[in-house]
Amino acid sequence: MQQFYDLADCGAEQVDKLLATAGRLQKHPEPRALEGKVLSLLFLSPSLRTLASFQAGMARLGGNTFVISPDMSIHGLETRPGIVMDGEAAEHIREAVPVIASYGDAIGIRAFADRRNIETDIADTEYKGLGALCSTPLINMESAINHPCQSLADWKTMDDLAIPSQSGKFVLSWAYHPRALPLAVPSATVHMAAMRGMDVTVLRPDGFELPAPIMEKAKAAAARSGGSVTETDDRQQALEGAHVIYAKSWSSTRHYGDRIGDQKLRTGLEDWCIDDPWFETADRDCRFMHCLPVRRGVVVSDRVLDGPRSVVIQEAQNRMYAQMAVLYHMLGSGE
Amino acid sequence: MQQFYDLADCGAEQVDKLLATAGRLQKHPEPRALEGKVLSLLFLSPSLRTLASFQAGMARLGGNTFVISPDMSIHGLETRPGIVMDGEAAEHIREAVPVIASYGDAIGIRAFADRRNIETDIADTEYKGLGALCSTPLINMESAINHPCQSLADWKTMDDLAIPSQSGKFVLSWAYHPRALPLAVPSATVHMAAMRGMDVTVLRPDGFELPAPIMEKAKAAAARSGGSVTETDDRQQALEGAHVIYAKSWSSTRHYGDRIGDQKLRTGLEDWCIDDPWFETADRDCRFMHCLPVRRGVVVSDRVLDGPRSVVIQEAQNRMYAQMAVLYHMLGSGE
Amino acid sequence: MQQFYDLADCGAEQVDKLLATAGRLQKHPEPRALEGKVLSLLFLSPSLRTLASFQAGMARLGGNTFVISPDMSIHGLETRPGIVMDGEAAEHIREAVPVIASYGDAIGIRAFADRRNIETDIADTEYKGLGALCSTPLINMESAINHPCQSLADWKTMDDLAIPSQSGKFVLSWAYHPRALPLAVPSATVHMAAMRGMDVTVLRPDGFELPAPIMEKAKAAAARSGGSVTETDDRQQALEGAHVIYAKSWSSTRHYGDRIGDQKLRTGLEDWCIDDPWFETADRDCRFMHCLPVRRGVVVSDRVLDGPRSVVIQEAQNRMYAQMAVLYHMLGSGE
Repeated sequence: MQQFYDLADCGAEQVDKLLATAGRLQKHPEPRALEGKVLSLLFLSPSLRTLASFQAGMARLGGNTFVISPDMSIHGLETRPGIVMDGEAAEHIREAVPVIASYGDAIGIRAFADRRNIETDIADTEYKGLGALCSTPLINMESAINHPCQSLADWKTMDDLAIPSQSGKFVLSWAYHPRALPLAVPSATVHMAAMRGMDVTVLRPDGFELPAPIMEKAKAAAARSGGSVTETDDRQQALEGAHVIYAKSWSSTRHYGDRIGDQKLRTGLEDWCIDDPWFETADRDCRFMHCLPVRRGVVVSDRVLDGPRSVVIQEAQNRMYAQMAVLYHMLGSGE
Repeated sequence: MQQFYDLADCGAEQVDKLLATAGRLQKHPEPRALEGKVLSLLFLSPSLRTLASFQAGMARLGGNTFVISPDMSIHGLETRPGIVMDGEAAEHIREAVPVIASYGDAIGIRAFADRRNIETDIADTEYKGLGALCSTPLINMESAINHPCQSLADWKTMDDLAIPSQSGKFVLSWAYHPRALPLAVPSATVHMAAMRGMDVTVLRPDGFELPAPIMEKAKAAAARSGGSVTETDDRQQALEGAHVIYAKSWSSTRHYGDRIGDQKLRTGLEDWCIDDPWFETADRDCRFMHCLPVRRGVVVSDRVLDGPRSVVIQEAQNRMYAQMAVLYHMLGSGE
Repeated sequence: MQQFYDLADCGAEQVDKLLATAGRLQKHPEPRALEGKVLSLLFLSPSLRTLASFQAGMARLGGNTFVISPDMSIHGLETRPGIVMDGEAAEHIREAVPVIASYGDAIGIRAFADRRNIETDIADTEYKGLGALCSTPLINMESAINHPCQSLADWKTMDDLAIPSQSGKFVLSWAYHPRALPLAVPSATVHMAAMRGMDVTVLRPDGFELPAPIMEKAKAAAARSGGSVTETDDRQQALEGAHVIYAKSWSSTRHYGDRIGDQKLRTGLEDWCIDDPWFETADRDCRFMHCLPVRRGVVVSDRVLDGPRSVVIQEAQNRMYAQMAVLYHMLGSGE
């Protein structure tokens, strides 16, 4: 595997192989599989689970990691091309990124959307530019529009819990949040559930539609897998018979990058907080999923999050096993 | 060993075993003992020795670690229960702690007292709440009222130096410090020395008594070990024949959590700085101990700290070997 | 090898051995060579390449590292001798440094010049004081006046590229920079190139002479190796036939530590930015070198840095292999 940028690049067969490896490594550790291998981790955006799970996962395979993030005492990093660097920044990413990549056998990069332009964010232009600077295999630790590690972990979590794939009903629900959040997780999630063959409903208030290219990509995946993808603001209809309610807040695409416009649009939507009543007409084994971090009492109620439906800790734990599988196939002796 | 929260939980036999393992690992490295094992390290309070010695110790056993601390570029952590998270914090410890724990085979947590309530700090309520969130074995890297890693290291240091246990005289002396410091180290230390069978004197000015439950616990340990525990403000009497002067500043228990009241009480106590004259009537081989960090010229004079009596560097180095023993018994193939 | 403080301490034979080991480890990994070994890394000054490459290099040899830097949530470090510590700093380097060193089998320390006094900076007094506090072998990760890891990596880079040593022409050129930078890299570089037997020209504007003791040391190395060392402000003459243009900015030695005086002296020197015309009379295979980080459009033009002459990424990558060789000889089973 030369890179792990998007689950869509893998194809169903490769995903099956990754999930099988993840499950095997969870049961049967291979503490020397990646002996002497090094993973570079570059965080241009904040992290907790990703930071911890990549270090832990690499260590469980006998490899090692190092972490670079701008909150360290490093020289400020310049990102703009063609600039005369007579200001604060002492280093350009055009040097920093290839150098950091060169010390590892693979590199993980996290860089959120700057939300200046929705088209370039959907195209992931900036992230792909960073990737192009690396001479080693790249792992997407969350870009402007994608988060394949989260998706693979969520897929594994649903498999672990025997949540049906064909004819399984997956509801990705928008939730209230005081801030406008990136599109990466909802975009990756709708595609993942569609690729898994599920009947996916994107439930969101008016104005919070997912971007058209994202929906089209998910529908194409559903066409191949035998699933379906629809979008609605009708909570009643969406939740009926659901096997999974996957909560996530995201910014308005109508007011993308416009904090004030987005804020106005979300005023009055505070009742988009997943609570017990949301599960009334759902499947009796319906699970609550979220990628974390999650705001209690805002995105989801305490009783749902602390209750038996919630599988958020398992999702987070599966981040480690999913990523170990990626590292195993990328850096191990196998293909 | 399922947890290492308090030396008192171990019993004398377990402590003997840990000290024997620590000594053995110091002489005969076992660089594959914990191959593929991962230790999660969560620092909610600052650290230098603990941060470094756990990473180094785990590495010497062939295992690995990862570190999470709030000064990293992670989302702020909320600790209050039942709160609606519409402020700054984006993640609650109820998710963060179990997730971090889930990536490791054991977890070390450091969280100092918030000093809002002396009863709950003595009961270590908040720390125990954190521990209850973890599904893996817990190591106490310093809580509101305990610091068993420091105690085990100090015990080993006294053994290494052949300082007598039965009939050895151990003086835990309060020292001046510009700030009100936690009770964890003095509480752990008085208990450790009592458990080792020493005659322990807590020397402190009026108003700086250790809490009654801490003294009772130490006296109970002394009753079992053949040692004794007394408390005095009479420097002359306390220091006579001492084999160890262990310096430490701590906050007033009378004005606990009251910065102004505590400050008033310590005004004029600047001569509680351990200096050469303190050793005049002590045993001629009397040692100076301190857990570090220590303020030179405030807690102890340069000439004592730089002189032959001082064993503070050995204490710090023994932190690593003591913790390696804990990790070895917690995560190794033995019991 | 008991320490790696200065390439000059090694002698030509030892450098040859280090370069041979670096090349061998690059081609034939030895992922168990330093099993169970720990390297302490103490950064009192900022770092990216050094931070990453030491962690990666140690991991590739099967060893491990831990990092301490003051931007972590540690107690502030006091450096002044004999001070009464009643201010902010809670720990003195006289304790912190030996403790950190004691957890590792070797220690790397980085501490830039404070530029209060050029004589003590050239003598590296403060750095040597730090080193004297360590009981383990010391690696200089850049001091006030030296950077042997960079020099060894640069030497290897020139060997890799078959840049001639005897009769090879090496130009160390001052470059404009908005701030007054340390003397460590230029001082180490002029000596390294001289030790390699090259004809070295230090090209710099009036007032930016390298200190006399540095030039004398380089000339002595050249006398042993068959090279030469000269200094000039004549760009035309210096660049003719050059095999390497090594760019670096440094502070004026005439106005050392005097920000205003140095600033005045560099006003109008903005054309000391290495660009294509600099290579017109150089050897046709002339390379551009720089230790990074580098300011684009200020120290060097984009077209030179992005062009085929630039080997800055290779230099950075060779940092890792050079340091692996040092670690291998310092901590491995060989001598």
